[in-house]
Amino acid sequence: MLVEGHHFRGDWGTPADVGWRAAMQNLADVAAMGAEPIALVVSLGLPPRTPVGWVRELGLGFAEACDPIGVGVVGGDLTAAESLTISVAVHGDLVGRDPVLRSGARPGDVVALAGRLGPAAAGLALLMAGSPHVVPGADDLVAACLRPHPPIASGQAAADAGAHAMLDVSDGLVRDAGRIARASGVGMEIDSAAALAMDGHRLAPAARALGIDPLEWVLHGGEDHGLLATFAPDADLPPGFVPIGTVVAESGVRVDGEAERGLGGWDHFA
Amino acid sequence: MLVEGHHFRGDWGTPADVGWRAAMQNLADVAAMGAEPIALVVSLGLPPRTPVGWVRELGLGFAEACDPIGVGVVGGDLTAAESLTISVAVHGDLVGRDPVLRSGARPGDVVALAGRLGPAAAGLALLMAGSPHVVPGADDLVAACLRPHPPIASGQAAADAGAHAMLDVSDGLVRDAGRIARASGVGMEIDSAAALAMDGHRLAPAARALGIDPLEWVLHGGEDHGLLATFAPDADLPPGFVPIGTVVAESGVRVDGEAERGLGGWDHFA
Repeated sequence: MLVEGHHFRGDWGTPADVGWRAAMQNLADVAAMGAEPIALVVSLGLPPRTPVGWVRELGLGFAEACDPIGVGVVGGDLTAAESLTISVAVHGDLVGRDPVLRSGARPGDVVALAGRLGPAAAGLALLMAGSPHVVPGADDLVAACLRPHPPIASGQAAADAGAHAMLDVSDGLVRDAGRIARASGVGMEIDSAAALAMDGHRLAPAARALGIDPLEWVLHGGEDHGLLATFAPDADLPPGFVPIGTVVAESGVRVDGEAERGLGGWDHFA
Repeated sequence: MLVEGHHFRGDWGTPADVGWRAAMQNLADVAAMGAEPIALVVSLGLPPRTPVGWVRELGLGFAEACDPIGVGVVGGDLTAAESLTISVAVHGDLVGRDPVLRSGARPGDVVALAGRLGPAAAGLALLMAGSPHVVPGADDLVAACLRPHPPIASGQAAADAGAHAMLDVSDGLVRDAGRIARASGVGMEIDSAAALAMDGHRLAPAARALGIDPLEWVLHGGEDHGLLATFAPDADLPPGFVPIGTVVAESGVRVDGEAERGLGGWDHFA
């Protein structure tokens, strides 16, 4: 569920951006179980003065996100609300596969990520600083925030490659890695250099301009919706997946051997 | 989507009532296409100070509604919002049937309804008047408002009996009959005596106490989520369906031959 003021701001992007993001966030959830997305249903809560054009543009954003994947919005409902509210449910088909859960990681597994790690958080930081265009590459980062590109097809590829556990990173790498670790009764060691290598070159100019360590965005930024999965040590990683760590027996998530206490990342109710 | 202040009030019922109603409203949508409900996904938008007990009770209401039907909540998401907001999507299975749409009504069809017609609106009127317990049967009417009982299984029975068109009455009989009529390119004649006969005896004491014509509730009250369907004139109506009108070629909805201009019923954005 996306709520204006919490998950998007009307002055940061277009209604189509909101529709795109609402679609992608939910498509990523289906992909992260190894399923093929089939169709979306969308519930809208709208303040009574919402212009019809806003809703039409929102729908265009959904279509732009969905058309290339061959899915579409097949139903939903409309109602009045104080805040613009968008709730999406995606129907998926496992096409005979077993679902990939969070609970299957095993000590020794390779931890790998497909997609981006940090750009959406960097784009959000630029928007919040009111300086979305000041540095080279800033437009790309803002676009990554407003229109994330989760690697939807990589979810099925990971399932076919025998992924033991998977989720999409929506609240930050460390926080979401911790979710797999807890569900699986294991721990994780993250290699910060490997994680930073994925998108560090894109993040560097904005990080310098804002005086932020880009590793903050890599480890604790959310909403890129990359797919974080674990694979047996001898598995061939499917295309797009990059190794960034290892599953270990000892609980907790450690970055370069140091414990992360899980205080970073996005807490919806903080 | 249910939003506090628009679709429920914390002082009128319990959180379990809200969960029950959110489940039933959406189960009725699936039933109205002739499908068997399979599972629910629920998105919650919660003000950060929402007590955990509220959410737990909401869940109990979902369970009370779902358990007898053999379905359950299998997933969803939680997020922060200004207003308590509940969005539900139900997965259904047509089990090989064609879906029953709104667009299949044909002139000559019998218009029939399964479920209740008016009690939820009467209960709402009692709650709004601040007099929920003053007349005989008032508690039943208030319960019908807070915990509607759509005839879920009747949807599949109607499909098996060859229903041409169907929907659940959520915004009032005349308004929802008009939806079938427009989608099918036909009109409808409603027999007010037959419609009133379904629940008129339950409505009469409250109508007298509030000085309201009970036919208002029957024709324009929503949220009982009865199933309104049309059947070929020679079809055997399935158990529970009561004839209340006829499909005709001339567009529009008429009650006892007089045009209803569709001004009654619930408009979410009025």
